[in-house]
Amino acid sequence: MRIFGIDPGSARTGYGCVETDGRRHRIVVCGAIASPALASFPEKLLQIHRCLAELLAECRPDSVAIENLFHANNVRSALKLGHARGVAMLAAVEMGLPVVEYTPAEIKRAVVGYGRAEKHQVQQMVKLMLGLPAVPSPHDAADALAVAICHVHSQTFHRIAAAADAPREKATSWRTYRPVRS
Amino acid sequence: MRIFGIDPGSARTGYGCVETDGRRHRIVVCGAIASPALASFPEKLLQIHRCLAELLAECRPDSVAIENLFHANNVRSALKLGHARGVAMLAAVEMGLPVVEYTPAEIKRAVVGYGRAEKHQVQQMVKLMLGLPAVPSPHDAADALAVAICHVHSQTFHRIAAAADAPREKATSWRTYRPVRS
Repeated sequence: MRIFGIDPGSARTGYGCVETDGRRHRIVVCGAIASPALASFPEKLLQIHRCLAELLAECRPDSVAIENLFHANNVRSALKLGHARGVAMLAAVEMGLPVVEYTPAEIKRAVVGYGRAEKHQVQQMVKLMLGLPAVPSPHDAADALAVAICHVHSQTFHRIAAAADAPREKATSWRTYRPVRS
Repeated sequence: MRIFGIDPGSARTGYGCVETDGRRHRIVVCGAIASPALASFPEKLLQIHRCLAELLAECRPDSVAIENLFHANNVRSALKLGHARGVAMLAAVEMGLPVVEYTPAEIKRAVVGYGRAEKHQVQQMVKLMLGLPAVPSPHDAADALAVAICHVHSQTFHRIAAAADAPREKATSWRTYRPVRS
């Protein structure tokens, strides 16, 4: 299973693709799309969309995980971030890929085990989980990998929960035919 | 000159194309892209982007004018609006069209002459300026036409300012050769 993580931003959009067999995770690609400082805002959006579309076509992931935010410093920065998230989501949905959103707290809980973990703790765990020699640079790339790992863990959790449900059904049917105690 | 106006929104995106010879304005098309209530948010963005791309290819405008906002009820609604604006801007810039942004106050000032005009006053002026039998429905379409008219007026103002600059240069050169008074 391949998951493509995105950490959107109007100045720099991090991306990271992770491949997993459910137990071991392997990095496929990671990096950041930096917008040229002199480009107009619509041109920056065009660059984010084009780069992500190319990367998704190359990586062929099964799904796309994207960081979600409900808090921002102000309305203006939320609006700007919304533009970048919008074109990033569009690149995924244009390729027919399912898009899953995770809040920063969910990502921290999945990667570090604590929803209020520090950024550098998340980045160190990404390094350890993917067996990397160093924290991926720039940090936006590490953050995007963390979103992808969060989705992997969420999927693994759902698989385990489904597997745990199956024996419970068996137990129910066994109980129906249990021998009557003396 | 043809201007394509957009009033973006995550639930409904208004659009309106206006053709002008500098004095008289004519409506080319107007309407609203309503997102299906049951569609996922990424699917809504895909629909906004696809519809706008088709309309821009049909209308072939010279530029695209889009409403800009700096204020929203909260960060969450600003983020959502940002997504819709992002994919709308992308549709324009993908076709190589220049994108111009206007604040609601600028639009009201250009259409009604007063930056704090009411919404219905703007819509009535749109009806009068384009010689329409009624206010375009839904209101998002009328708002998009107002953005387009705002850009037309802004362009007209720049042309008049440029024309006013020319005689001033002539006057300067005339002053150089003016006869000395006795």
